[in-house]
Amino acid sequence: MFVVMARTAGEAEIIGVKSAILGEGLTPYDHAGAERTVIAVIGEIGARKADLMSRLGGLPGVESVTPISRPFKLTSREFHPEDTVIRALDAVVGDGSLTVMAGPCSVESRDQLFQTADAVAEAGATILRGGAFKPRTSPYSFQGLGVEALRDLAEARDRTGLPVITEVMEPNQVDIVAEYADILQVGTRNMQNFSLLMAVGRVARPVMLKRGFSATVEEWLMAAEYIISSGNPNVILCERGIRTFETYTRNTLDLSAVPLLRQLTHLPVIVDPSHATGKRALVAPLAIGGVAVGADGVMVEVHPNPDAALSDAEQQLTFDQFRSMMAQIVLVHDQVRGLRDAPREAALALGNGDGQGRH
Amino acid sequence: MFVVMARTAGEAEIIGVKSAILGEGLTPYDHAGAERTVIAVIGEIGARKADLMSRLGGLPGVESVTPISRPFKLTSREFHPEDTVIRALDAVVGDGSLTVMAGPCSVESRDQLFQTADAVAEAGATILRGGAFKPRTSPYSFQGLGVEALRDLAEARDRTGLPVITEVMEPNQVDIVAEYADILQVGTRNMQNFSLLMAVGRVARPVMLKRGFSATVEEWLMAAEYIISSGNPNVILCERGIRTFETYTRNTLDLSAVPLLRQLTHLPVIVDPSHATGKRALVAPLAIGGVAVGADGVMVEVHPNPDAALSDAEQQLTFDQFRSMMAQIVLVHDQVRGLRDAPREAALALGNGDGQGRH
Amino acid sequence: MFVVMARTAGEAEIIGVKSAILGEGLTPYDHAGAERTVIAVIGEIGARKADLMSRLGGLPGVESVTPISRPFKLTSREFHPEDTVIRALDAVVGDGSLTVMAGPCSVESRDQLFQTADAVAEAGATILRGGAFKPRTSPYSFQGLGVEALRDLAEARDRTGLPVITEVMEPNQVDIVAEYADILQVGTRNMQNFSLLMAVGRVARPVMLKRGFSATVEEWLMAAEYIISSGNPNVILCERGIRTFETYTRNTLDLSAVPLLRQLTHLPVIVDPSHATGKRALVAPLAIGGVAVGADGVMVEVHPNPDAALSDAEQQLTFDQFRSMMAQIVLVHDQVRGLRDAPREAALALGNGDGQGRH
Amino acid sequence: MFVVMARTAGEAEIIGVKSAILGEGLTPYDHAGAERTVIAVIGEIGARKADLMSRLGGLPGVESVTPISRPFKLTSREFHPEDTVIRALDAVVGDGSLTVMAGPCSVESRDQLFQTADAVAEAGATILRGGAFKPRTSPYSFQGLGVEALRDLAEARDRTGLPVITEVMEPNQVDIVAEYADILQVGTRNMQNFSLLMAVGRVARPVMLKRGFSATVEEWLMAAEYIISSGNPNVILCERGIRTFETYTRNTLDLSAVPLLRQLTHLPVIVDPSHATGKRALVAPLAIGGVAVGADGVMVEVHPNPDAALSDAEQQLTFDQFRSMMAQIVLVHDQVRGLRDAPREAALALGNGDGQGRH
Repeated sequence: MFVVMARTAGEAEIIGVKSAILGEGLTPYDHAGAERTVIAVIGEIGARKADLMSRLGGLPGVESVTPISRPFKLTSREFHPEDTVIRALDAVVGDGSLTVMAGPCSVESRDQLFQTADAVAEAGATILRGGAFKPRTSPYSFQGLGVEALRDLAEARDRTGLPVITEVMEPNQVDIVAEYADILQVGTRNMQNFSLLMAVGRVARPVMLKRGFSATVEEWLMAAEYIISSGNPNVILCERGIRTFETYTRNTLDLSAVPLLRQLTHLPVIVDPSHATGKRALVAPLAIGGVAVGADGVMVEVHPNPDAALSDAEQQLTFDQFRSMMAQIVLVHDQVRGLRDAPREAALALGNGDGQGRH
Repeated sequence: MFVVMARTAGEAEIIGVKSAILGEGLTPYDHAGAERTVIAVIGEIGARKADLMSRLGGLPGVESVTPISRPFKLTSREFHPEDTVIRALDAVVGDGSLTVMAGPCSVESRDQLFQTADAVAEAGATILRGGAFKPRTSPYSFQGLGVEALRDLAEARDRTGLPVITEVMEPNQVDIVAEYADILQVGTRNMQNFSLLMAVGRVARPVMLKRGFSATVEEWLMAAEYIISSGNPNVILCERGIRTFETYTRNTLDLSAVPLLRQLTHLPVIVDPSHATGKRALVAPLAIGGVAVGADGVMVEVHPNPDAALSDAEQQLTFDQFRSMMAQIVLVHDQVRGLRDAPREAALALGNGDGQGRH
Repeated sequence: MFVVMARTAGEAEIIGVKSAILGEGLTPYDHAGAERTVIAVIGEIGARKADLMSRLGGLPGVESVTPISRPFKLTSREFHPEDTVIRALDAVVGDGSLTVMAGPCSVESRDQLFQTADAVAEAGATILRGGAFKPRTSPYSFQGLGVEALRDLAEARDRTGLPVITEVMEPNQVDIVAEYADILQVGTRNMQNFSLLMAVGRVARPVMLKRGFSATVEEWLMAAEYIISSGNPNVILCERGIRTFETYTRNTLDLSAVPLLRQLTHLPVIVDPSHATGKRALVAPLAIGGVAVGADGVMVEVHPNPDAALSDAEQQLTFDQFRSMMAQIVLVHDQVRGLRDAPREAALALGNGDGQGRH
Repeated sequence: MFVVMARTAGEAEIIGVKSAILGEGLTPYDHAGAERTVIAVIGEIGARKADLMSRLGGLPGVESVTPISRPFKLTSREFHPEDTVIRALDAVVGDGSLTVMAGPCSVESRDQLFQTADAVAEAGATILRGGAFKPRTSPYSFQGLGVEALRDLAEARDRTGLPVITEVMEPNQVDIVAEYADILQVGTRNMQNFSLLMAVGRVARPVMLKRGFSATVEEWLMAAEYIISSGNPNVILCERGIRTFETYTRNTLDLSAVPLLRQLTHLPVIVDPSHATGKRALVAPLAIGGVAVGADGVMVEVHPNPDAALSDAEQQLTFDQFRSMMAQIVLVHDQVRGLRDAPREAALALGNGDGQGRH
């Protein structure tokens, strides 16, 4: 349940409520919003629900107590009505500006990385991506250059000023990746690697959590809940396609998830059309589509010579294709900028009961 | 295979090629494009392929003969490089203009229909939709008003000037529906009702073919092939969501299919976010997204009082919501209008071999 | 809701209840079971539910009135607790005996059919299958021999004594197919062709309803409900694989559906491993598996020379392979015969509320 | 590619071939089968394929060199034609005997575990299962008792003589889990946690690798390839259901995968109907079905009082239900024991080219 404090409630009253929650053997998480503080009550409540709601509701400074039927708490709009805004160096994600994460699938060499970094920075990318540790279906495929690539990424950041995002694959790698990168990425195959989620939840870096290719939206938000409840509130969600029966595209990009997430959660949402489609010619149209449905930005793969890439050759854009995509996406983003708040407002108006689909 | 005639080839040479094809026990279909005529060769070719290509290639007026690996022929860009443009009364679909099909899920009464028709016409819809025969999962659910609804739709067309689209569910209904409606719709559950496809292929009305909710893009194009090869070239494709494991939305709208189809086929593509999402709050963002990825337009459900609707209450827009969506979608369509040809041009540049995905 | 009559209730009391239901503007369907009669109440009950239950419960001869939350009524175990047993010539389906439907995918010639019919009859098949009208993804593929094949099938029945099952694809074909065949099959692509379901619901032949390749168990039972509520209680269900992301097999045979259906419904269940797997080497193991999980039998495709087959060549068994499968399946059927009632008994013990999965 | 040595080839000739492979910058893996040794050549072969095959084919003691089109090598039947047989204490998996892994979902207390262990041992289980570290969708759900549960499991092993299997969730846990458990389990959400796969590949314990709930058979075999190529050949595969659109069951148990795997790989296969169905009443029928299609055994969850379980309450069997299932499964296993080699023999007969499905 959520305890909504009155606008006028002070520090002492908030502490009073949190103490009462702790006294029940439960855990309070509070969010001090622009207008008021909301305190989430986490733990096994069970049969004492009505009683507890009434007792907490009677404490000084409490405006209302609302039950929550959904399993995600700290990621929900009810707990945190304002959009979460995330900063990494000069980049800002989630404030209505357009985020463009671009770079090669894998760092293959300093030269390949620097060429690409320069090109995407010049064309308007706001964040540089590049794989150092690569999760590959086959043990015999190229697995990334590892720490050497991390060093190159850090150097590319210094050249371009762009913050760097790269994937971390296991708890033991979190420290070293966090040393070099500005944003940590948890990949689609690791979305329910709970040890990893808790590890990135304890580090002082924003985390981009890719949707598991077969995860429901609810499971995805629960994975974000692992990170936030471990202490890291700076989570970006990335829709990258789900596994379906269709074979022309590698996966099916679920753009419906974008406005749905704007209702359900305060976290920013990025769309990755490169991995979703696996086809270069579809990347730009779907990047534009992602922005049009209200995403905070896109992540795309760019390579100086895609046909020679060591991984995902078919989906990486050339520099020219990236520049052309940028020109278009900026125009559409300007157009829809005013529209992106509609689903959030619908959510706030409708409250907790809606959006449940087939549930 | 396709026989591409020279630009200079005349009627006699075209007849010569078609006769040669018939002489092989095969069937020729020809398309006279703006620049040249292409003749598709349909039938069991098997082992004589190389020989046949060489013989047809040597006939007067033939520029080239190209094999085709994909199973769809008459629906393919190779056969028919220009976009198909479809007309119904004053409405034009597929010429770059914005098509908006709107109206109630089911016709429930003259009053409900006329109110809705007037409202959507005034707000800028170009085609009026309304269900007369309704395919329902349960035999005990409202099955539509049938012929009475067809008459009401025809009257609503007279009031508003908008052409009418409505669903036909079996071969025996084709004549009566074609008598009243301007465009026939084949629904998602009937996408592989081959008897129905052949029946609508023999009628002088455009047909909108909804994607089966579990059909691949290839199966969908093969279903269109049934209609076209039965004699009706005026087919509109409608993406309406595919069945996946996600439960928050009714189905998953596959917007990647839109730019993919622009590569593969010359047929216009409409997006239906109402059935795909099953949620009113997601309809407008995904309608905008559909247009942004290059669709020729959208189909949405509108009702004077959605909560009282006899079918699909949760997904129908109010008049106000429809007007608000129209204002937004027009802006985005203006912005992307110039972009929609990119995938088609990529297709024409890449030729037959690309776009094959996991195949 | 269901009105359960007392064991001692007579004809007059049953008529009294049915009249009362009709008087409410609702439709009664009654099933006279071995022990008692159950009357299903179909129609829009809405807000008068409690009141109606109380009134019907007070009528003479009524033992109890139970609400039903599931959408399927006449197909449910609650309405019809005993297994439905279906007869066609000498074959009996659903009585605990082993049903084996076998024959070629398509009838290709009299000779091919008669050879196969003789071989499967001799090896112990109980029903002869063979396609006359073939639903094909491509309009250019072999579409079946039509009425000529129906005549051949009837002749094969006369040779072998085996009843014949064949597919019907549209309402207009129902009469002609029913003239020649003993059991009508509705194919997977037509599972929600509601016009066809109602048409086969009006004919005096058992119907085998294949599961739509993307239909949920509930939608499948609703499709059966269309047939039964149209007047034909003799419905056999056939699990034939559902569409998933796996590509090694054509579809994924859902054997969990078999014991689930034995809980939910009284209708017999057949398993088709040929279409599900699309691979000859997997047919026998999965036929055995189907019987082991409690199916009433299997349907398999057999061809004198599979590699030369005009359709589905990869999945048809040779005569030798069929004989070998028969030897094994009979042994396993003998072993599990005693086990097949467990899920049904569990269902009857648990009553209406269970088995709901993620619902 | 695989280098197949002659039966008469000696140690020196095998070393000669391996040296030649190393000299090419490639890695040799050899398997000394009962009849002959096969050496797999792993690495980037590319354009030198024909040349390399010819050179290796000319070396002393080489019988033949065969290319392999599939991505899995060490897991394939071609590399290792005999079934892999795995031993843990007195239990043997993969030799044709019936393996039954049983125990509670989670270890909740010593008492609960010991009661269950005694009951399943007495009823004929061959391996004891029990969760110590539990991967849970929600961070707020019971996460297992951890090391304390490992100690209890080891004690339960001492009581019953049954080897213990339990899940390991991250590389850092591998050593501690291996200290107490006899078989390590990698769970469905970790099937592509490549760091974990490599970590369990370096430990001297058999590993049971559950199929990812959305993994294809090929991806699953590639995950096994990670373990084997890291040094651990003792891998058991466990089919536990895949995610589909069906909602009555939690997942869809893919029993077709069992005979398919017997063709493709030498590794033993276990079926888990508890997690697949999520429904107690379906567990026994599907366990029987799993054995009937040729699995080496089953894994089921058993609890003294399922309704009070801290996790997965709905799917755990009571002791009585487990005993009843055991009685049935033993009978069916005896019946099909002779049948289980058919798919493997088909595989060996057909060779590498078959079994490719939609690929």
